Amino acid sequence: MDAEVSKLLQVKARLNNNEDNTKSKFILKTPKGMQDYGPQQTSVREVVFETITKCFKRHGGQSIDTPVCELKETLTGKYGEDSKLIYDLADQGGEILSLRYDLTVPFARYLAQNKVGNLKRYQIGKVYRRDNPVMTKGRYREFYQCDFDIAGPGHPLIADSECLRVVYEILHSLDIKCFEIKVNSRKILEGLASVCGVPDGKFKLICSSIDKLDKLSWEEVKREMCTEKGLEESVANKIGEFVKLSGDISLADKLLASDLGTNEAAKQGIEEVKLLFKYCAAMGIDKVMKFDLSLARGLDYYTGVIFETILSGEQEVGSIAAGGRYDDLVALFSDKKHSVPCVGVSIGIERIFTIMERNEAARKFYPTKCFVMSAGKDMTVERFKILTELWNADIPSEHSLKSNPKPLTQYQFCEEKGIPFIITIGGDELSKGIVKIRDIRKRVDVEVKRVEMVQHLKKLIDEM
Amino acid sequence: MDAEVSKLLQVKARLNNNEDNTKSKFILKTPKGMQDYGPQQTSVREVVFETITKCFKRHGGQSIDTPVCELKETLTGKYGEDSKLIYDLADQGGEILSLRYDLTVPFARYLAQNKVGNLKRYQIGKVYRRDNPVMTKGRYREFYQCDFDIAGPGHPLIADSECLRVVYEILHSLDIKCFEIKVNSRKILEGLASVCGVPDGKFKLICSSIDKLDKLSWEEVKREMCTEKGLEESVANKIGEFVKLSGDISLADKLLASDLGTNEAAKQGIEEVKLLFKYCAAMGIDKVMKFDLSLARGLDYYTGVIFETILSGEQEVGSIAAGGRYDDLVALFSDKKHSVPCVGVSIGIERIFTIMERNEAARKFYPTKCFVMSAGKDMTVERFKILTELWNADIPSEHSLKSNPKPLTQYQFCEEKGIPFIITIGGDELSKGIVKIRDIRKRVDVEVKRVEMVQHLKKLIDEM
Repeated sequence: MDAEVSKLLQVKARLNNNEDNTKSKFILKTPKGMQDYGPQQTSVREVVFETITKCFKRHGGQSIDTPVCELKETLTGKYGEDSKLIYDLADQGGEILSLRYDLTVPFARYLAQNKVGNLKRYQIGKVYRRDNPVMTKGRYREFYQCDFDIAGPGHPLIADSECLRVVYEILHSLDIKCFEIKVNSRKILEGLASVCGVPDGKFKLICSSIDKLDKLSWEEVKREMCTEKGLEESVANKIGEFVKLSGDISLADKLLASDLGTNEAAKQGIEEVKLLFKYCAAMGIDKVMKFDLSLARGLDYYTGVIFETILSGEQEVGSIAAGGRYDDLVALFSDKKHSVPCVGVSIGIERIFTIMERNEAARKFYPTKCFVMSAGKDMTVERFKILTELWNADIPSEHSLKSNPKPLTQYQFCEEKGIPFIITIGGDELSKGIVKIRDIRKRVDVEVKRVEMVQHLKKLIDEM
Repeated sequence: MDAEVSKLLQVKARLNNNEDNTKSKFILKTPKGMQDYGPQQTSVREVVFETITKCFKRHGGQSIDTPVCELKETLTGKYGEDSKLIYDLADQGGEILSLRYDLTVPFARYLAQNKVGNLKRYQIGKVYRRDNPVMTKGRYREFYQCDFDIAGPGHPLIADSECLRVVYEILHSLDIKCFEIKVNSRKILEGLASVCGVPDGKFKLICSSIDKLDKLSWEEVKREMCTEKGLEESVANKIGEFVKLSGDISLADKLLASDLGTNEAAKQGIEEVKLLFKYCAAMGIDKVMKFDLSLARGLDYYTGVIFETILSGEQEVGSIAAGGRYDDLVALFSDKKHSVPCVGVSIGIERIFTIMERNEAARKFYPTKCFVMSAGKDMTVERFKILTELWNADIPSEHSLKSNPKPLTQYQFCEEKGIPFIITIGGDELSKGIVKIRDIRKRVDVEVKRVEMVQHLKKLIDEM
């Protein structure tokens, strides 16, 4: 007995040790599916954000900023099957919170909470999804979305078509020219489901299956519909006939002449898509649009037109912009059923970054224009005085962190970073009241009076 | 017995009903201590961010962007008593994550993980603290920090003094001119603790008590030291004598002549503060600095100079910028004890925003320059054509979401939002190939040829 106890105690001790080892072995990494952006990536992103923001403002967009966290209840029941991907915060006493899953639901919450009935808003921010990350394809668990939404009553399709124009302008100004905007309507899908005999209450389930058609084959989607979601095979086959259809807007009249034309919802949806194409033609963007019955979108809240933009020839990259109309979402948050019709689009810029970074890899992104060097010992204070003059004149400038740095090391640093000018000061220069300015690319030195230093350097920078 | 059971069941049913009621009562709000920023606030923030970013770049700063979440272990043991304020994520399978508490620890993790030995980096992002929020004083649970840090070896105080210059430049360019930068050193506090007889191992605990002197009286801080942290009263009294001291840099020589001068750490710390003042004098900012022995900073990771900026006459607003040297933090993350000395500053802009918003409340922030109106029915397509010309010319423009909006409503909208120009098109104008441009402020209409519309409008906008 004693022997057994002692053996068990030994095992226990070993287990404890293991636990301690595991604890002390610290793993140096970012969370799974989340990444750091270094200085070069950040500088590319800055350019992209500026371009996008400029377009949003061109359309009268105003920005809002909402918390990264929302009450868990705010997000509940908005995302269909994808709700399982929401990140929850630990219950540390107090409210139960989740990380935001998109920027649309927080926007609707904002409208309802502040009783705002009209707003063109944009928001750029990170969202969180506990999805299976595929970093090489730009699929992360933390990623930026750039959203533009138009909230407020209006006549059909006026706001919707402006959203498509926004997508078009942004992609063009980012020099992305081969893309296609797929368009469909939840109303058409609703009519289609009814015409094909999908039982009431299964519509959203079926939508999220159809939504997978960009990644799975029809056979796989059909299997999911029949086995997982209990649809009869004959019904699935009928759906299959419709979701095959896509093309330009001439498809609309063909659909109106088919079974779909007999269904009120489908008919209305098709007429709306026709009007969308008409307005988009006025804005010169109908040529990049495709009416596609297989487009469904996974989220619960869409009620009308839906759309998704993909890069031509890069099907596997997935959509880079998507959105639609969601007229009932704000009312879900309002005690007095204050309803605000909305339509919006979300630009998924991670994928755009991936493309941009390829193009811009060689771009110079180091901000410093002038490096201040000292010749001779103990010139740190003099360097600070010169730097202060440069900073006061808004010239990005820096120096070595060492008191007596070696000239060669400083030159190498400037060449490596692409810093174009060096100002050198030594005892000689100091007594003569001058500084030396070196143009690194031209390998030319000039001596200028200290009082003319800033003016001269500014001229050199302007002439670059 | 049956009667009792039935009574209990009724009570239970009532309780269940109550539960259901609680569940269904959805509360429309942001999480406690977190807030939405509306369009006007956001536009003020945009200006502040731009000003700050410009200063960071002027000093050679490059930006990085790290995830909002970190592995929980990454944050463990870095924040002293404040660690209890960290937000944890729920364990949903996989890694255990927390929301970042500041931008400094993620930066150190970034340097270690990517083996970066030299970097001037800035980062603007939100951080999270489960603190007691006081919204009116700008204290939130989610708030922005703007950090500037210099990582890499160098001679003493060169990088440190540049950080103070950065704070000075930013506040000046934001028109905040009455402020004071308090300076101290962890080395001085260490020496002080040793000279006063604080037992080994209690140094950090005592620092976080001293740190409260900006909010609590000395008597309250002393009570905390003696009762909660078990310090002898005689030791606390000795500390009290020192932390009273503050003034300009002449204080340094007085301290060197006191008991503190006999302690190696304190002596080194005092000499460093002297050098800091010397470099800062060269940059013209020593006049706003105060050497203050009561400044301690609550965080564990500081190792040298520490500093904190407060607005003069707004003591209760708390610090608006703070930082210090942390030479050992990166090594904590490195398996090979790869050490990177760092110094940095964090600008707490929520408090700056509160001040700016007071000043800028009246600023016009609506982006749209031109509103497109139609006179006559069914002109939506024509409006879209004109808008497209304006958007192509990068003129921020919009129109009504209605097909046949009332002229008066549209005028009112433009006046309310401060939109300066209206372009009107009707059947008449269309057939003549002209448009009407109205300057709302001058109440002047002009008719221009459609082909000259963009050019003419651009001129009007430039002349505004």
